[in-house]
Amino acid sequence: MEAAASNQRRDWTSHPSLCQSCAATDRTAETETELRIGEIAITLPPQPDAGVYFIGTIHTPWRSRADCPKRGSINGPICSIALDELWRVALTGLADHRRLQVLYWMHDARRDLVLQTPYRTGTTTGTFALRSPVRPNPIASSIVDLVAVDDVTVQVRGLDCLDGTPLIDLKPDRTSEQE
Amino acid sequence: MEAAASNQRRDWTSHPSLCQSCAATDRTAETETELRIGEIAITLPPQPDAGVYFIGTIHTPWRSRADCPKRGSINGPICSIALDELWRVALTGLADHRRLQVLYWMHDARRDLVLQTPYRTGTTTGTFALRSPVRPNPIASSIVDLVAVDDVTVQVRGLDCLDGTPLIDLKPDRTSEQE
Repeated sequence: MEAAASNQRRDWTSHPSLCQSCAATDRTAETETELRIGEIAITLPPQPDAGVYFIGTIHTPWRSRADCPKRGSINGPICSIALDELWRVALTGLADHRRLQVLYWMHDARRDLVLQTPYRTGTTTGTFALRSPVRPNPIASSIVDLVAVDDVTVQVRGLDCLDGTPLIDLKPDRTSEQE
Repeated sequence: MEAAASNQRRDWTSHPSLCQSCAATDRTAETETELRIGEIAITLPPQPDAGVYFIGTIHTPWRSRADCPKRGSINGPICSIALDELWRVALTGLADHRRLQVLYWMHDARRDLVLQTPYRTGTTTGTFALRSPVRPNPIASSIVDLVAVDDVTVQVRGLDCLDGTPLIDLKPDRTSEQE
């Protein structure tokens, strides 16, 4: 289902990246084929409808899902977003914004559950009623404070994801966009 | 680059879906091969790194980019999100939330510009300093008010995208998530 990374890219498979709400799901790689009571998995469509490029890598202090905060805080540690060289010029003007929206790909999450029973609550509910990383398209969105732009590295506060998470987008927060 | 839609899916290509910030970019299908003064296009990577499933269709009153509001409003019209049947069960519990985050795919937008000169401002800046739909991964995020869940249709207020836009995710807004 997932296209292979090109040779120039990092080996994403070596960086598990279940991030946002990871504490709520608390699902480890070893148990991803198991279902908890009440959970239902479906057969995914045979092929995706569109392709996503990984455009950089997010570096955080958190090396395991258990370490990740449940929710990012603007009082949290500075994290670094290392953009791939290809997109360098697209950072022009980013430093004029104070708040950014960061989209990233939780590539290690299974995508086939329609009902989930988070470990933390023990209550079974639909995937779309949860912010769990386990969902058809494992895309997370964080609003962060911009600290600095240094070459192709963007320093921010407010992330909650694992070190090594693939970046898929970076844009001014709606409230920060210049009119 | 984009995988072909399966036979069961709608023909997305017949529904141009440049949405969020469409007024800012004001780029029509006819002019997408042209560059404005200052704009720079790059050669995209030969293949994507991950695949996205279109999981439903967003229905709005806006049939052309010029009709779309620049920004969705919770005082705006009710829009309908029609989820594909495959994901029906994943809606369980959604009605318990008042605010949702909707992610959708602006599949008609070109993805190769690193510098853009929006028609509205005439100022050239980097793609990541804009919320333009023209970006490496054309994913938009909207926060909406939930009006009703009726079978596989979710009615909301606050969208700003074109009728026919492919849905890629639906989750409780961070402020609406149950603790």
